[in-house]
Amino acid sequence: MLSARPRATCIRSLGPWLAAIAAVAGTGPVEATPELAGFTDDGARVQRRVEERLAALPSAAAFRAHLERITLDPHPFGSEANARVADYLARVMEGAGLEVARHEYDVYAPVGRPGVSVALVRPLRLPLNNQEYVLDEDPYSAHPAAGPGWNAYAATGDVTAEVVYANYGRREDFQKLAAIGVPLEGRIVLARYGGNYRGYKAKYAEEAGAAGLVIYSDPANGGFANGPVYPEGPHWNESTVQRGSIKTLPYPGDPLTPGEPALPLDSGRVASRLDPEEVALPRIPVTPLPYGSAAEILRRMEGDPVPKGWQGGLPFTYRLTGGPGLTVRLRVEQPCGWVRATDVVGRLRGAEVPDQWVILGCHYDAWTFGAADPNGGTAMLLTLAEALGELARQGHRPRRSILICHWDAEEFGIIGSTEWVEELRRDLAASAVAYINADMCVTGPRFGAAASPTLKGPIVEAARAVAHPDDDRTVYEHWLPAAGEDREPAVGNLGGGSDHVAFYTHVGIPAAALGMGGPSLYHSLYDSFAFFERFCDPQFAYGPAMARIDGILALRLANADLLPYDVGRYGADLALHVASLEKRAAELEVAVRLDSLRRAVADLGAATGLMAAAREAYLDRGSHPLAELTDLNRQLLALERGLLHEEGLQYNSWGRSLYAGPDPFSGYACWLLPGIRYELEAGDAAGVAQWEAVYVDAVDRLAAQTRELLAALGAAP
Amino acid sequence: MLSARPRATCIRSLGPWLAAIAAVAGTGPVEATPELAGFTDDGARVQRRVEERLAALPSAAAFRAHLERITLDPHPFGSEANARVADYLARVMEGAGLEVARHEYDVYAPVGRPGVSVALVRPLRLPLNNQEYVLDEDPYSAHPAAGPGWNAYAATGDVTAEVVYANYGRREDFQKLAAIGVPLEGRIVLARYGGNYRGYKAKYAEEAGAAGLVIYSDPANGGFANGPVYPEGPHWNESTVQRGSIKTLPYPGDPLTPGEPALPLDSGRVASRLDPEEVALPRIPVTPLPYGSAAEILRRMEGDPVPKGWQGGLPFTYRLTGGPGLTVRLRVEQPCGWVRATDVVGRLRGAEVPDQWVILGCHYDAWTFGAADPNGGTAMLLTLAEALGELARQGHRPRRSILICHWDAEEFGIIGSTEWVEELRRDLAASAVAYINADMCVTGPRFGAAASPTLKGPIVEAARAVAHPDDDRTVYEHWLPAAGEDREPAVGNLGGGSDHVAFYTHVGIPAAALGMGGPSLYHSLYDSFAFFERFCDPQFAYGPAMARIDGILALRLANADLLPYDVGRYGADLALHVASLEKRAAELEVAVRLDSLRRAVADLGAATGLMAAAREAYLDRGSHPLAELTDLNRQLLALERGLLHEEGLQYNSWGRSLYAGPDPFSGYACWLLPGIRYELEAGDAAGVAQWEAVYVDAVDRLAAQTRELLAALGAAP
Repeated sequence: MLSARPRATCIRSLGPWLAAIAAVAGTGPVEATPELAGFTDDGARVQRRVEERLAALPSAAAFRAHLERITLDPHPFGSEANARVADYLARVMEGAGLEVARHEYDVYAPVGRPGVSVALVRPLRLPLNNQEYVLDEDPYSAHPAAGPGWNAYAATGDVTAEVVYANYGRREDFQKLAAIGVPLEGRIVLARYGGNYRGYKAKYAEEAGAAGLVIYSDPANGGFANGPVYPEGPHWNESTVQRGSIKTLPYPGDPLTPGEPALPLDSGRVASRLDPEEVALPRIPVTPLPYGSAAEILRRMEGDPVPKGWQGGLPFTYRLTGGPGLTVRLRVEQPCGWVRATDVVGRLRGAEVPDQWVILGCHYDAWTFGAADPNGGTAMLLTLAEALGELARQGHRPRRSILICHWDAEEFGIIGSTEWVEELRRDLAASAVAYINADMCVTGPRFGAAASPTLKGPIVEAARAVAHPDDDRTVYEHWLPAAGEDREPAVGNLGGGSDHVAFYTHVGIPAAALGMGGPSLYHSLYDSFAFFERFCDPQFAYGPAMARIDGILALRLANADLLPYDVGRYGADLALHVASLEKRAAELEVAVRLDSLRRAVADLGAATGLMAAAREAYLDRGSHPLAELTDLNRQLLALERGLLHEEGLQYNSWGRSLYAGPDPFSGYACWLLPGIRYELEAGDAAGVAQWEAVYVDAVDRLAAQTRELLAALGAAP
Repeated sequence: MLSARPRATCIRSLGPWLAAIAAVAGTGPVEATPELAGFTDDGARVQRRVEERLAALPSAAAFRAHLERITLDPHPFGSEANARVADYLARVMEGAGLEVARHEYDVYAPVGRPGVSVALVRPLRLPLNNQEYVLDEDPYSAHPAAGPGWNAYAATGDVTAEVVYANYGRREDFQKLAAIGVPLEGRIVLARYGGNYRGYKAKYAEEAGAAGLVIYSDPANGGFANGPVYPEGPHWNESTVQRGSIKTLPYPGDPLTPGEPALPLDSGRVASRLDPEEVALPRIPVTPLPYGSAAEILRRMEGDPVPKGWQGGLPFTYRLTGGPGLTVRLRVEQPCGWVRATDVVGRLRGAEVPDQWVILGCHYDAWTFGAADPNGGTAMLLTLAEALGELARQGHRPRRSILICHWDAEEFGIIGSTEWVEELRRDLAASAVAYINADMCVTGPRFGAAASPTLKGPIVEAARAVAHPDDDRTVYEHWLPAAGEDREPAVGNLGGGSDHVAFYTHVGIPAAALGMGGPSLYHSLYDSFAFFERFCDPQFAYGPAMARIDGILALRLANADLLPYDVGRYGADLALHVASLEKRAAELEVAVRLDSLRRAVADLGAATGLMAAAREAYLDRGSHPLAELTDLNRQLLALERGLLHEEGLQYNSWGRSLYAGPDPFSGYACWLLPGIRYELEAGDAAGVAQWEAVYVDAVDRLAAQTRELLAALGAAP
């Protein structure tokens, strides 16, 4: 997982993808679906049998063995240990009967482990610790290859300066500092983790003229204020460092090849690469720090007390400035160069429609050991690959192909998956049924999910089909809101920050992120097998449960007669997003009404609301020729692509989804209907009107496609 | 100054050269000398006038300006700043009218500034400071080129281990640890500065199997226990680091070319260089630490309390071992390679006997700014060069040549001077009247000196001739022991640790080290002009006073009709040394008596005791032909060479002086009559007898030479 969560508590591992969950929580019950959407009765019977067999296959022992093996050593992108992990993944998938291919890219990235140091210079020289304590309870913490914390793509630099505290380092925090009149030019900024993607802290600090940035983990945001710290509990102790990338380019992936794959330098197949000097990578040195070290700076600051809401969890009054008697030296030596990324892709070839692909994926590179982030997901996918391979050997090969992808270099900026998507964009646009992400998907008992609208229903149904390891209830029953709240569990809207981004926002493939959440000390040395066994999944049961959920979801998408997309959800969700935008306009005092779009969405809703019943009625009419089904499925598959805007968003030409896009001011959150949102935030009513027209066109097109499909299914339009 | 002092109080800057001062303190009045020994009455009158003029020339302003200029930047050997200092030295001496030559050598030494870090690993990660605090009172402490402490020639290594405290890290300390049964194999040893040369701490730690060594400055040995610390007072504060070389080869100078000059690699004039792998340079990583940082380790140690005498000045009970819960990581990255050393030698050509040389010298390379060590001496020599040049312009060119030498690379192992002596050994043996060292010679008001016997008298006389800047008394009067002690001030015997070593022990040239002593924080970043002005020489008066003393001493040696060597001192001092050896034999319970040697020395004393009177009687007989004087002077000059043993000492073939040699077990102290002392320490009575014979031969030879000379002077034998 690349980016931080809001408030960075790290308890809910799915945080980053749940950007707009609040907007979804009030939507009421999801569309009612029949027991096995998209299947004929005969197909459903076979599918049920296959699912029963699948459920029996993933074992705690297999999951545990894979995880322990993968997380033996720190294996960041570019390391030899990571190459060994890649070899292991390929070997296991080949052993399971999958066809395995490696896809390689040469990307511009930090080479090796950088030199980083932070020290007080005045009033005394005090080098600050930037590495986790060695704990008897966690032998991984003494691993010889364990190293101090750093931020990928920080600039090389050596600065000594006074300090300024900038709260979370959000846009509004820097605006506040400017309003108060705190000088930032030439200062070293201290910002706490949380509130936005860490890269934006660096971006805003740099724009404010800061000489450097220290990002620390405040105990209020994941430390002792949240409960006992590691090893007593799962919370951040005074030495725990959150590593992470600070790249904030308007596109994920290789910084030098937006929109096209960074094929190997010696392949001769890349038209051009950008000049690194011309790419907006950070220009100031940046480093993370644990709170035990940040406290040594913060406690010595002598300026004015901070505004309301800026006080953190350390036991003294936080100050805005350190004053001239307090200087800090920050040194970063981080050369960049070309580093080889290797995606390892296994394919279980579909028996009937091999050129339609259900894709599951998780990155395998890790900031440290990666037990929670990401390799619980990796081990789960290996366990699932073995189960699916075994089913195929038993004669239950899926009708469509299932791809299991292990991405490299996610932690440095979602690189491996993005390059792969850019390389295979045309094939994916034509063939990809769905992308299901497994990053950090095993950290505890609490199931959660975020997805594009079409996958929300299938996810809920999959959760109904799997027993929760903790008792005799299903995952779905555990997931339900507290008793008395009469509604479905909320499936959030996908945010940024992991490998679904290119699939979803660049190519328009329905995407989802599912996981069973719990604690993690992600991007720290304590993200180890020892922590995992103690606090995440002591019985190694949640991993196999996730394999069942992902496996059932994938098999339904792969085997359904008609793709079981939750098409009706578009109408409901879009109507909600339009209402949210109008509310936001009121907050911002931008005088706009989205009447045309509201009408278009209502019209779309009228059509999509008929889809589930039409599909089931069609299937109930008995068997249909495969060619006819295949044609219908192609139309279903094309629906979501209808919301793509080929030219890209006005603020981000790489992002082509009109439905969801990055928040360009936090890098963490996801904006819904981003083309309009951007104009709203800029206070440009004319721009809103212009983009509303773009959206109305797209929604009308989607409604027309839906009606065509309804007609093809034999439903009255 | 290369090496540490005993007890490392650093208050007496001449400490290292006063190795055997205790042995001298009781010798009673020195031989009575006439007012201007070695001069005819006419010569003495001229000399007095010249000395008066000389005394008026050195100014506080000139001394201050030179010192401030030289100490602008840290200028260790090999740095660009050091090359700029060399250029300045050459420019000033050329301006003063001296002929300036650069002598260059390519020596094997650390290249650039190494990477060094020390951190606690268990029970918590705590990087330790290894650099001086920035002080408002001393702006040099914030110099951008200021860096952390390190030890030259420490091995590259990265070790994490438990710790053992080894007191001063002396031979006897490691013997004690072995006797107690403290395991050292694979441990990191902590030893405090003091008690021996730091290189021997490393040597003994390595021999004991230690994985690494941390040498720290205990507050009992120069810190708060001695008085207010810097900047309040001149004592070591908790951040003050003593840098320094740890080379312990049996020869000073370039490690690869013992006995011959390390002429530049491209000169094609060096027969062979040793293979660095075959030279006994340290094999373990070593670093210095200030006591503020060492305390973080020491306070967490949990083993048995230390033996009596091992407790230092930190406020807790010192322990022998840290235990398994305390581990420390020591990392040193220190590549060695060839580094160019440049000696800058100015010559004021003698008017009558230019091929007899009176040599003054001081190194100019410094661990940091070098205000006290060594550049007070450098600035003094420049001030003196300007004064001597002015005298020459006024018609008072010295009869013999005076050389003013600025040595490079002393701090890494007395390299520049040693290579120069090795290059010019034959010339020096024939021509050098004396070598007078000025390393660290200006740090305060208290005059002190150490010398070979022949120069002791002339030094006392020079001190009589110069007014002390503090009041209307002479330097000599200040130097006298406290009222009531009816004796001459003590001139110590020369130890090791600075640039006189090669002159004295390799070629047998009479040598001396003179200085006006006070506080210094030598080898630390606080050895700055700011410290110097505050605590060493606030009026910049002691520097000019030293220029007068060295100038008068040099001019007397350069202008005397007969060299004014204190020949009589040989008899007295040798008798004392023989008695000391017999006492040491009793301590060691080695059954030896040095009867033959005692008799030979007594016989020598009978002859040398006549020399002063014979010389003066000769001169009183009126003028003599220059050729005759020159011949007599050659004989005088050859006397001290009579105590050379061409094959070298049995334990050190480079050291050829039978009179003084290095203590091979501490590297700091100087042994007198080292050939016998070595056998004594080994408890080898037969060896003592064998070496006694060598000494008797040499003393007999010296006595015979003395008698020949007496006869030539017309004295009755």
